[in-house]
Amino acid sequence: MEYKKNPFENVDLQGGFFAQRQKINKDITLYAVKSRFEETGRFDAFKCAWEEGMPHKPHIFWDSDIAKWIESAAYILHKEKNAQLESYIDDIVDLIEKNQQQDGYFNTYFIVVEPDNRFSIRDAHELYCAGHLIEAAIAYYKATGKKKFLNLMCKYVDCIERVFVLEKTAEFTTPGHEEIELALVKLYELTREEKYLRLSLYFINARGRKESVETFFLEPLYSQSHEPVRRQKEAVGHCVRACYLYTAMADLARITGDKELKSACEAIFDNIINRRMYITGGIGSTHNGERFTRDWDLPNSLAYAETCAAISLCFFALRMTLLEVNSKYADIVERTLFNSIISGISLDGESFFYENPLEISSVERENSKAGGYKQRFPITGRVKVFECSCCPPNITRLIASLGDYIYSYSEDTLFVHQYFSNKAKILDTEITLSGDYPNNGSLSLELRGAFKRVAMRIPSWCNEYSLFVGGKEYEGEESKGYVYINADKPCCKIEINFEIKPVLLMSNPFVLNNRGKVALMRGPIVYCLEDIDNESSVFNLAVSVPLKASCAYDNAFGAFCCEADGVLIENKALYFRSENVKKKPVKLKFIPYFSFANRGESDMRVWCDIDV
Amino acid sequence: MEYKKNPFENVDLQGGFFAQRQKINKDITLYAVKSRFEETGRFDAFKCAWEEGMPHKPHIFWDSDIAKWIESAAYILHKEKNAQLESYIDDIVDLIEKNQQQDGYFNTYFIVVEPDNRFSIRDAHELYCAGHLIEAAIAYYKATGKKKFLNLMCKYVDCIERVFVLEKTAEFTTPGHEEIELALVKLYELTREEKYLRLSLYFINARGRKESVETFFLEPLYSQSHEPVRRQKEAVGHCVRACYLYTAMADLARITGDKELKSACEAIFDNIINRRMYITGGIGSTHNGERFTRDWDLPNSLAYAETCAAISLCFFALRMTLLEVNSKYADIVERTLFNSIISGISLDGESFFYENPLEISSVERENSKAGGYKQRFPITGRVKVFECSCCPPNITRLIASLGDYIYSYSEDTLFVHQYFSNKAKILDTEITLSGDYPNNGSLSLELRGAFKRVAMRIPSWCNEYSLFVGGKEYEGEESKGYVYINADKPCCKIEINFEIKPVLLMSNPFVLNNRGKVALMRGPIVYCLEDIDNESSVFNLAVSVPLKASCAYDNAFGAFCCEADGVLIENKALYFRSENVKKKPVKLKFIPYFSFANRGESDMRVWCDIDV
Repeated sequence: MEYKKNPFENVDLQGGFFAQRQKINKDITLYAVKSRFEETGRFDAFKCAWEEGMPHKPHIFWDSDIAKWIESAAYILHKEKNAQLESYIDDIVDLIEKNQQQDGYFNTYFIVVEPDNRFSIRDAHELYCAGHLIEAAIAYYKATGKKKFLNLMCKYVDCIERVFVLEKTAEFTTPGHEEIELALVKLYELTREEKYLRLSLYFINARGRKESVETFFLEPLYSQSHEPVRRQKEAVGHCVRACYLYTAMADLARITGDKELKSACEAIFDNIINRRMYITGGIGSTHNGERFTRDWDLPNSLAYAETCAAISLCFFALRMTLLEVNSKYADIVERTLFNSIISGISLDGESFFYENPLEISSVERENSKAGGYKQRFPITGRVKVFECSCCPPNITRLIASLGDYIYSYSEDTLFVHQYFSNKAKILDTEITLSGDYPNNGSLSLELRGAFKRVAMRIPSWCNEYSLFVGGKEYEGEESKGYVYINADKPCCKIEINFEIKPVLLMSNPFVLNNRGKVALMRGPIVYCLEDIDNESSVFNLAVSVPLKASCAYDNAFGAFCCEADGVLIENKALYFRSENVKKKPVKLKFIPYFSFANRGESDMRVWCDIDV
Repeated sequence: MEYKKNPFENVDLQGGFFAQRQKINKDITLYAVKSRFEETGRFDAFKCAWEEGMPHKPHIFWDSDIAKWIESAAYILHKEKNAQLESYIDDIVDLIEKNQQQDGYFNTYFIVVEPDNRFSIRDAHELYCAGHLIEAAIAYYKATGKKKFLNLMCKYVDCIERVFVLEKTAEFTTPGHEEIELALVKLYELTREEKYLRLSLYFINARGRKESVETFFLEPLYSQSHEPVRRQKEAVGHCVRACYLYTAMADLARITGDKELKSACEAIFDNIINRRMYITGGIGSTHNGERFTRDWDLPNSLAYAETCAAISLCFFALRMTLLEVNSKYADIVERTLFNSIISGISLDGESFFYENPLEISSVERENSKAGGYKQRFPITGRVKVFECSCCPPNITRLIASLGDYIYSYSEDTLFVHQYFSNKAKILDTEITLSGDYPNNGSLSLELRGAFKRVAMRIPSWCNEYSLFVGGKEYEGEESKGYVYINADKPCCKIEINFEIKPVLLMSNPFVLNNRGKVALMRGPIVYCLEDIDNESSVFNLAVSVPLKASCAYDNAFGAFCCEADGVLIENKALYFRSENVKKKPVKLKFIPYFSFANRGESDMRVWCDIDV
């Protein structure tokens, strides 16, 4: 069966959790990122006028930062005209036009800083920057109808094709940081020009082959170049690079029908979600290479779990949903979005985390220094700008395009993957999805149009749900985590109610550091404890089982917080008999994980001890 | 009240746990260490004939290794003549005599390798070696009546006094590695020559003073030179150095009646046992400086817990018992002896551990490499020799002199601190202590003699005991963890029965890595799980609470092993609801911690997860 994407252009988020986030994104984050990028000289770099001795020396990945910002702005412009914003971008496009090289080459760093080293340093992010510029150009064209940027980038792609495929004059075969592969698929899908598809396939097919001429920043695994992609079965190396690659692989498997590629994607996806992913959807167990490590290696306090990595997994999961409708894919979209992605941006939309650890223990950090373990821990306070600022514009473009993730369709079936309230028009069908998800699980879906069936995802966290069609209880057929509903009447109203309640999760005993610990979830949202809300260090608290918790909406977090029964252990001795344990009953306040570190720095933990 | 030592010379261990260990020590370990030291050139170093280009270049601490070996041999000779062994030592003493410098100086390393650098490198262990040579000379004199070695060392002490106190020509004021301080007290106690006491006091008093001229291998804390000793309240720095210092301080406090010194010892001792000691009696939370770190910082798998460090704590605790009869001191002697000390030697007496971690996880080690945490873990297999071989002869001399730890006395009271079966003669009193401790807690103590009272330690692990005197139940007065019994009849038979049963211990919630975990103890013995005995990795097992365990004597370990009810968690998912946990009941086999790694390398843990 062929599954079709339904892009965000056809969907308007209305009310609810992510509509609110989109508003902050549009009104605040876009401009917060813009002003940071201005201050740091990133926009000025497009003038290609930097000379030795001047401040703000261009950096190899600055083009990608600006490109992602333009892409974000374009998604926002698509929904709401803004002449000033458009003119600002037009000026950048003019600079690109002005500074693009004769042969189509464009990269502000190499043009200015290392003109003789074009395409000679595999890890210098050139093709990565090119990919982001292509994505930005596509988005800007779709938003405004203006073709200049797109044309410039098509010319650049021709240059890349010439250097890498025809003349083979580049000093490496495939990009050290993947991204252009998925951008070329987008360009193909927009233009239907086969050459873009071929170039994407070229990079995918050449990766990990003996005949490719590569250099390695770390080792072949780091850049997924250890073997041909179709033979890869595990997620390895730098997480963002990896998932951008897998995203393109899934795209190409869908477009070309390549079954080997599809199998590789499936194996890798399963490896991630069953062995190498934090409960928050975060990926990357170490800062050392920002990478996947080993099955079950998920240290909480040392977690890297970069915001961009969760975003890249979300991209990959979306593509997998277009290969097969199986709830495990959209579940991961949901898990990443509500947890490890939005934890990367403050509630006010102005500051960011690069890393999203699941635990912050000031005592562990101090012990580490005293013990001389030479460990490096993630920062504990959100920052407005960081040198490696890939995450802020990445989260901005994602939030602006969340409409991409809600629906897909086949000839006769509408698939509902995500439950963000919205109005949409797909083909000739008008759709309204309303509710207060995930604060509560009651949703109403109204359709006016032609789909014969509606398939709604049953979230993996949900054990029970009820379904009503046209006001009557309905027993839909379930398949691969979706419930299928006949909708052959021209107007159809579906009500579904997912039971949302706080539950405790455990993790596989192979995950050493979570043994004997539990995490609280309510619906798709993972919770955490912060010192600031609790009467003792969160590391001295234990939650009672079975869970006794009450949850209520808290305006400060835009979500439910939970209060659970627990204990504080009061023994003062270093060692004491377990029968002599002295416990004081306390209430534990859990807040959504995504909102940690919004009220200053605080010790925090997701995986909690259990009162025994 | 003045408390008197009762040295091992008056005590013969007979039957039971440590008598067996003494036999292995005498028959096997002494010669195992001897042959290793011969192979590595340690004995030959006493010829002072090494030249550049020859193998076995002398090392700065080899004198201490040989000295501790001679001391061990002397304790053994004291109990059993052995002409061959004595002649072997006499040859070494002759070499010392031959190579001792005109002014009394003796150090095989400096005489041969760095003759111009005598007493110029604070951290080169010269005074540490001197201390061990003094201890060896005293022991050998007591064992054989031969005075030559002792005289040579007295001459060396005179040299040290001249250089450090009278002429002040040394390039530092106090030793970088303490040891000579306690050795000088022993020399004073043997000879009653005040000058040795004065020299010990000189080193103690000069330590940490601004006017002292010192260099620092690491920082002042590392060598306890951060402030004058009487102002020190916490155990800091290198554990062995620290506890050798504290041992001498406690000796001097007793001999001189210095209350400030006594208070410092008490504060430091309490700091160790209430904040900085593993449940095994091990001390040293990191290999990085082999040192104390911070309160509550007791990582299990990274524990350093050097065998020598536990021995040094045992020395310190013995001295504290002579300052005040309080069971917390003898409890620590017992805790270290049955756990972190004898874990340092294999059951067959031939191989050793320098470090005694409380957890070995091959998965953690692999994860650490993959995560690039740059952690260093203790070795997992016992070795017959190691470069830094301080521990093997240290454990040998301790086991040979365990009789030191059992009794002390005051004018009218006999104190029984340890319960190793023995026959002793103190003053005119003949004493027989019998039982099968700690396999069971029933002990019989018979006295024929003059003590009016007997005080027996109630071990801290014991909640209940019964006491019979002359066959009749007896209610003794309890004070500071000892029960006092009138024994004014010329013959008195005391029977005491300490309830020994397996119990679970918890640790203070501030100890991060033990949160939600328990350790099994039975009497003074701490237990551990090893993979080799269990059907799954020990990290996938959890013990059921309340504990349901059966224990039985196991000849292979010379102690009881325990089998406890527990579970294996069988869920395969990465994350799952706690209510869906699938548990398989299993029996967990616990072995005494001291016997870990005696059957090859295996994952091991002391602190276990709890079935919840």
